[in-house]
Amino acid sequence: MISEELMRSISSKNPAKMLMLVIDGLGGLPLNGKTELEQCHIPNLDKLATQSICGLVDPISPGITPGSGPSHLALFGYDPIKYQIGRGVLEALGIGMHLTDNDLAARGNFATVDEKGIIVDRRAGRISTEKNKVLCDLLQNGIAEIEGVKVTINPGKEHRFVVLFKGEGLGDGLTDSDPQKNGKPSISASATTESAKFSERVINRFIKEATHLLRSQESANTILLRGFSQIPKIPSMTELFQVRPAAIAVYPMYKGIARLVGMDVLEAGEEIRDEIKALRDYFDQYDFFYVHIKKPDMFGEDGNFHGKVRAIEEVDEFLPDLLDLRPDVLVVTGDHSTPSVLKSHSWHPNPILLFSRFIRTDAVERFDERSCLLGGLGRFPAMGIMPLMLANALKLKKYGA
Amino acid sequence: MISEELMRSISSKNPAKMLMLVIDGLGGLPLNGKTELEQCHIPNLDKLATQSICGLVDPISPGITPGSGPSHLALFGYDPIKYQIGRGVLEALGIGMHLTDNDLAARGNFATVDEKGIIVDRRAGRISTEKNKVLCDLLQNGIAEIEGVKVTINPGKEHRFVVLFKGEGLGDGLTDSDPQKNGKPSISASATTESAKFSERVINRFIKEATHLLRSQESANTILLRGFSQIPKIPSMTELFQVRPAAIAVYPMYKGIARLVGMDVLEAGEEIRDEIKALRDYFDQYDFFYVHIKKPDMFGEDGNFHGKVRAIEEVDEFLPDLLDLRPDVLVVTGDHSTPSVLKSHSWHPNPILLFSRFIRTDAVERFDERSCLLGGLGRFPAMGIMPLMLANALKLKKYGA
Repeated sequence: MISEELMRSISSKNPAKMLMLVIDGLGGLPLNGKTELEQCHIPNLDKLATQSICGLVDPISPGITPGSGPSHLALFGYDPIKYQIGRGVLEALGIGMHLTDNDLAARGNFATVDEKGIIVDRRAGRISTEKNKVLCDLLQNGIAEIEGVKVTINPGKEHRFVVLFKGEGLGDGLTDSDPQKNGKPSISASATTESAKFSERVINRFIKEATHLLRSQESANTILLRGFSQIPKIPSMTELFQVRPAAIAVYPMYKGIARLVGMDVLEAGEEIRDEIKALRDYFDQYDFFYVHIKKPDMFGEDGNFHGKVRAIEEVDEFLPDLLDLRPDVLVVTGDHSTPSVLKSHSWHPNPILLFSRFIRTDAVERFDERSCLLGGLGRFPAMGIMPLMLANALKLKKYGA
Repeated sequence: MISEELMRSISSKNPAKMLMLVIDGLGGLPLNGKTELEQCHIPNLDKLATQSICGLVDPISPGITPGSGPSHLALFGYDPIKYQIGRGVLEALGIGMHLTDNDLAARGNFATVDEKGIIVDRRAGRISTEKNKVLCDLLQNGIAEIEGVKVTINPGKEHRFVVLFKGEGLGDGLTDSDPQKNGKPSISASATTESAKFSERVINRFIKEATHLLRSQESANTILLRGFSQIPKIPSMTELFQVRPAAIAVYPMYKGIARLVGMDVLEAGEEIRDEIKALRDYFDQYDFFYVHIKKPDMFGEDGNFHGKVRAIEEVDEFLPDLLDLRPDVLVVTGDHSTPSVLKSHSWHPNPILLFSRFIRTDAVERFDERSCLLGGLGRFPAMGIMPLMLANALKLKKYGA
């Protein structure tokens, strides 16, 4: 893969507009012989495929199933092995928290501990989300700050919450305070690096104080923290590629990942039509747009084959609105496959189409996995998409004399 | 390529059975327009190809012709550039010697030296294999040990033998004692690293004592040693992938390589039918099976095109027996091509088919080089096979959040 140094050295600005449409969980596996995409009626995408150059994209590399963090970093042109987004950070992004460089994030569970300090239920009987909110308020009101570190507690669903430690001198490199199994004693977080010693002290005091505040609760009488992490030190897309990037997404996690790589996150409502409207409204102000469509992945995760088919067909209906904006370079692909038959992310490559004035069109006439296999882009890792888009936008100078 | 650290972190156990059938020297080159495979009548493999996802595998990378060491390491999921099996070690494995971490192995030749110490025949007139055995016995009886290092001498064919030095403190990093040309003076082995100084002393004393024992021989009056090497420090497949691996092979070298990566080597007789029987007998006890078929390579090396065709057809006849075991993931491929027209290993990619429940089948209907070119797996390096097999066995966790 091409190094960041090389990309920095050959990137240049021009007004050409690039649009990356990411259909979450796009690729699938056959049910009765055909994948979700192969069973879709998507005349607009099919027509665009005939005018584009197509291919197959491995999110990371063959066989590797990515989470949303690595798969999106790769789409945005970053090495997904070099840069990793920790669990705590991703959860924080997922509920819409804004993180800065010094923040340390962790995932938390309310849990039940017996009088001997043994964890009897890591999920505190899966307390209700409403109860969770009450308990997070209790903790937040009781613990605002520890040794100058501001503590922010945000409830998630059921027994889950996210805690953010904000202050100077917080290194990461900490083991979980969660033994991961019932029947084990509760444990402290432990620094694995010298620079995390202060974090260790703050976190363990937080756990102690939280447990004290929860002492009279019936089930949720302690907390377990895990996935301590900080946002990765990552150059912005503007630094690397000299682009002005904007993100249009509905779900907080994707907005958060986009923010990590320096995108402006545009107000995009709740539905695809709102996302298209945002794109239209801001089209003059940026030269790279990441548009994220969530629904196909959700149906895939639910094992709802026909729901996923329908969700992809819905995207197709809005394609003419995208094309009306006349982007110079348009890519349509997925971040990873989510086959309904697996009900989960998978390792299978995604179809991709790239539309620009400077392509050799191929024989692909259908936008699906098996048709794109024979496309002119061949098969390549997702990290290679950005260089291709930039090249097609004539934003990359010649390398070498 | 995916790092070992990543593979370790995402590998997990489940009972799914994986079977890798390696047909040695599978790929070929056309004679009268068609390769060996293309001239084969292999109805079972062709039928399986239609139910599988196919592709082409480069043993190392395009243009690189591998020996059996690197090609097998890559098949087993190891970086064949990072890990190298030295010549001495490979020869020792090839004649069935068991090596442990501290052993230093070397290839040897009996040779003829004149009274001035000049090598006049590096192969001692290609003495007979029988004579070789007699001389190896002579050396073994005369030299059991040097400075606490146990010396084991095993005859090979004609003038060739293998010597194994077993003891503490034997580092490798030694130049050959073989000038590689007649007409040059015989030379000593020389340490290129500090840790090989003791080895140097032991080896050169061995050469001196051996030459003394051979002094009255007519032609084989000295020895030349080369390829000093130890087994590479290599994590086992169990460490990397959490599998229980077993090897079924007839030839010692393949058993030896399998042992290097931590496979159990099963008693597999002499013929394909014996290998299949071993597979059936042990099928419950392991979750990864490497089955090695030697004959096609041997016919390829002999330039016997039709012999190679017939040998591949023989494999096809046993395919139904393999399928009867209902492996969850089955891969059929080669370790390298051995085109009969070249009479040697070659750089050409091998066809591969991968059969599992979680694939997108492709349009490939014939298991041969040109048909598999259009397969859904595309073209990829052999090191990528293990991640794909593990993914299809659902033995890999998601990477990243």
